[in-house]
Amino acid sequence: MTSRTAFPAAEAYMRSCMNDSAHDVEHIYRVWQYALDIAGREGGADTGLLTVACLLHDVGRAEQFADPAVDHAVRGAEKAYVWLIENGYPAGFAGAARDCIQTHRFRSDAPPQSLEAKILFDADKLDVCGAVGIARTLFYQAHTSQPLYTLDGRGGVSDGEGDTAPSFCREYRFKLEKLYGQFYTKRGSELAAKRKAAARQFYQALLDETRECYAVLNTPCPE
Amino acid sequence: MTSRTAFPAAEAYMRSCMNDSAHDVEHIYRVWQYALDIAGREGGADTGLLTVACLLHDVGRAEQFADPAVDHAVRGAEKAYVWLIENGYPAGFAGAARDCIQTHRFRSDAPPQSLEAKILFDADKLDVCGAVGIARTLFYQAHTSQPLYTLDGRGGVSDGEGDTAPSFCREYRFKLEKLYGQFYTKRGSELAAKRKAAARQFYQALLDETRECYAVLNTPCPE
Repeated sequence: MTSRTAFPAAEAYMRSCMNDSAHDVEHIYRVWQYALDIAGREGGADTGLLTVACLLHDVGRAEQFADPAVDHAVRGAEKAYVWLIENGYPAGFAGAARDCIQTHRFRSDAPPQSLEAKILFDADKLDVCGAVGIARTLFYQAHTSQPLYTLDGRGGVSDGEGDTAPSFCREYRFKLEKLYGQFYTKRGSELAAKRKAAARQFYQALLDETRECYAVLNTPCPE
Repeated sequence: MTSRTAFPAAEAYMRSCMNDSAHDVEHIYRVWQYALDIAGREGGADTGLLTVACLLHDVGRAEQFADPAVDHAVRGAEKAYVWLIENGYPAGFAGAARDCIQTHRFRSDAPPQSLEAKILFDADKLDVCGAVGIARTLFYQAHTSQPLYTLDGRGGVSDGEGDTAPSFCREYRFKLEKLYGQFYTKRGSELAAKRKAAARQFYQALLDETRECYAVLNTPCPE
């Protein structure tokens, strides 16, 4: 296919690294778009660096998928740096891209520092918001064989709050619903806020439907 | 775990056959609940037969998953019949369960005939409605590596109408949005209607979010 950026080699390398539904190439292009949108509103960002950082931010995903102990942000930052140096990018540019990629994941010990790193962080989080975020979460959970919900001690559907066993409902309560207040840029916060209601509505509908269902299951057995 | 029905052996056999997120054991229990709910409102159904048909209706899923040319309804009906005969159920009962299972899938050439078959059909379709139906569709698409959407000739996000390539949007337009008028029982139609808006809202939000995103991607490249 035709390259969508002015960095066809980096784009081709990214495409060779992406191979699951939750982190497919369209995720990368969406993150790149969000980043350009935010950069356009915020001003002052190096859009070339930002584009390369967006393209390569998930190149360590396959390694984390194969071994959950691997941090894809750390591994991806290393891979991207090596690739950029090997492909003739200046060390300063490669290092700046590495720093962006290393800090794009939620981790209290490594917050993004540069403007481009903050924009990448926000752009990547936007793709976990709204209906798209719900869909990507469900894709990921299918790959890791997680259920939609778990049952509480009384046979009812748990809303996910306080759960320890993984499920979609737990992921919504522990992560998805808390995303919206965690953006670095004003534009990122604005775009996230627009998507919040769709995610909440889906979670609530799923809970309402299943709780209505199990309420009947928990009546005495008819046979 | 404790059996949830009065048919622990059939339930254990079902559990041994279910092994993907989209058709896990909770799908079976939801279908059973819907079936009992419908039977309670419609009257006249044999709830023992209905329970066994619900428990065993997807026992042919693994075979279809391994080979898409296999019809899980046909294969499951055969497997269920053999299992029921081998486990001492009368031939009439086993045959009636087989007929229910064989006709639970959408196929114009094999509509459900008995009241229990119609109730199983409706109960199974209810679990493709609403937010639960969206979630199960996304689980299934993750397992078969389908994307959320495809791009049209101009680089925009297709709404799925008229698409040939598989995607979530295509599945919504070709199948999910058309379910709601295809129920055999009044109670099935009523329960489906309650779930329609949640599914529609999710699809629309997904389309709005991604189209807004790609509209920026399709402006001239900034680099």
